[in-house]
Amino acid sequence: MKNILILGGLGFIGKNLLEEFSGDRRYSLIVFDRPAALKKAVRRKGVRYYGGDFDSQAALEKVFRENKVDTVLHLVSTTVPAASDGFEMVYDIESNLVPTVRLLCLMRKYGARKIVFASSGGTVYGPETAHARGGGIPENASTNPICSHGTVKLAIEKYIQLSAYLHGLEYLVLRISNPYGEYHSSQVQGLINVALRNVRDGKLVTVWGDGKVVRDYVYIADCVKAVKKLIDLGASGEIINVGSGKGYSVNEVLRLLRGLAGDFKIERKPGRKFDVPRVVLDIRRLKSLTGFRPTDIRTGIKNTLEWLRKKPE
Amino acid sequence: MKNILILGGLGFIGKNLLEEFSGDRRYSLIVFDRPAALKKAVRRKGVRYYGGDFDSQAALEKVFRENKVDTVLHLVSTTVPAASDGFEMVYDIESNLVPTVRLLCLMRKYGARKIVFASSGGTVYGPETAHARGGGIPENASTNPICSHGTVKLAIEKYIQLSAYLHGLEYLVLRISNPYGEYHSSQVQGLINVALRNVRDGKLVTVWGDGKVVRDYVYIADCVKAVKKLIDLGASGEIINVGSGKGYSVNEVLRLLRGLAGDFKIERKPGRKFDVPRVVLDIRRLKSLTGFRPTDIRTGIKNTLEWLRKKPE
Repeated sequence: MKNILILGGLGFIGKNLLEEFSGDRRYSLIVFDRPAALKKAVRRKGVRYYGGDFDSQAALEKVFRENKVDTVLHLVSTTVPAASDGFEMVYDIESNLVPTVRLLCLMRKYGARKIVFASSGGTVYGPETAHARGGGIPENASTNPICSHGTVKLAIEKYIQLSAYLHGLEYLVLRISNPYGEYHSSQVQGLINVALRNVRDGKLVTVWGDGKVVRDYVYIADCVKAVKKLIDLGASGEIINVGSGKGYSVNEVLRLLRGLAGDFKIERKPGRKFDVPRVVLDIRRLKSLTGFRPTDIRTGIKNTLEWLRKKPE
Repeated sequence: MKNILILGGLGFIGKNLLEEFSGDRRYSLIVFDRPAALKKAVRRKGVRYYGGDFDSQAALEKVFRENKVDTVLHLVSTTVPAASDGFEMVYDIESNLVPTVRLLCLMRKYGARKIVFASSGGTVYGPETAHARGGGIPENASTNPICSHGTVKLAIEKYIQLSAYLHGLEYLVLRISNPYGEYHSSQVQGLINVALRNVRDGKLVTVWGDGKVVRDYVYIADCVKAVKKLIDLGASGEIINVGSGKGYSVNEVLRLLRGLAGDFKIERKPGRKFDVPRVVLDIRRLKSLTGFRPTDIRTGIKNTLEWLRKKPE
């Protein structure tokens, strides 16, 4: 049985991954997340929980000392793309990049074999002109992020690959596009979920710019299924796009939401410079490895809506 | 008259740049370097000197507050490629990347227009296979560094380009290959200078591996002339390779040194994993912008030798 440590296991992707992995007896799960998140979490049977801040080396090292960790799923992110202003960039580096490099050192020290890192398909590529007009962005496209979040994710990717080169660390870098679905709770990031929640609560839905920004929305259940499959298969030494491979503009998404969730009012704000005009991922590699077949966006939204209606809060 | 702030102005490249700029009345020079370096420095007339650590925001901000800085030449580097082991990587990020991002914030706050950054042509590309067999590496080649030094330089490049995109900062990223020549003083980096000094002092010359590693050695006088020319021209928004465009193996360099400086003994150590097998830069862009014509390596070595013989220490 392999010990898998999920960093950020109580976040959006983490909760879904935990559900996906539960019941598979080949894996034993350890969750590491912030003490505040741990306090209000519903604990799953058989999962070991550790509370601590990602930038506390002592807290992180305790986990490695007490468990023979085989694989680390690194889902922690302390910032969103909007946080690119001035000294927020310093915080981004100090709270994400530095602790990840420390994590890589700890993995080496304790003999942890593999890291699976949730990178950002939506921000690491930047305004990749060759793919701006259509088609998906392949993994070998150039990487010119236009926000700090993407710049830090890219630097983390490079440090992971450096550790692979120098010390034989196994890795998977997953460039995940825009996930939506069950267990999402951010108030600021994730158009579909934030909009659906606001519609439910009778609040305005905020749109930045003309709504023509195109994104690749991936249903979270598809996403975590693909991640588990890649881990089951032992895929390693690769950067892999994880998305739906399809693009929808913000306006198209709003139209879909209106049809499925009812009417709502929009609050328009000026466009944001750090928003790449169009990001649609080329997911051929993911498909060929896992047989990935993404859920239709209508079905995904309906499922999310159903979950949201049952959610007490 | 434009105020140019040279960060690391008392280092190898800095001293040569200062000499290159001195006498040109279009520029007024400010040097920022470590207090220890400042203490033993010979001060040039008309240059303003500030002592401080690069990671001290207060020390750096003082310079911007007291001077209307137009252009920043960023030559600071606290690490060498060899420092890629474990927690040295954390130090690399905290002492180079973080202070540079803070610098970018200060430049914005005080309206400094342009940054010229000394990146590393020898490490940011990594083992670029397409160019491994011959020919020079162009600026748009993929960037896969195999040491922390190169990874941090690359992350800095990305943050500079981010500031250019978000806030209109002008920039030049100079990917400088392996400079050698006058005013070099490192004991650990720079084959030609370190070897010449050791020959003079009757010490062994260390060679890592089989000596087949190929590097692009650029004479420092050529390098700083090109940098000044690019600044004179107002070149901006570009990454530019600065090298000789020619490759010599360590063994070839040692043969040249033997012919020019006399015989010496070699100490062989095991090859280092972070040494890219071959780095020769494609310098066509630099040539077309500045008419760059690199000095022959024999002449460069002779000049260096002459300087070294006159050097008191």
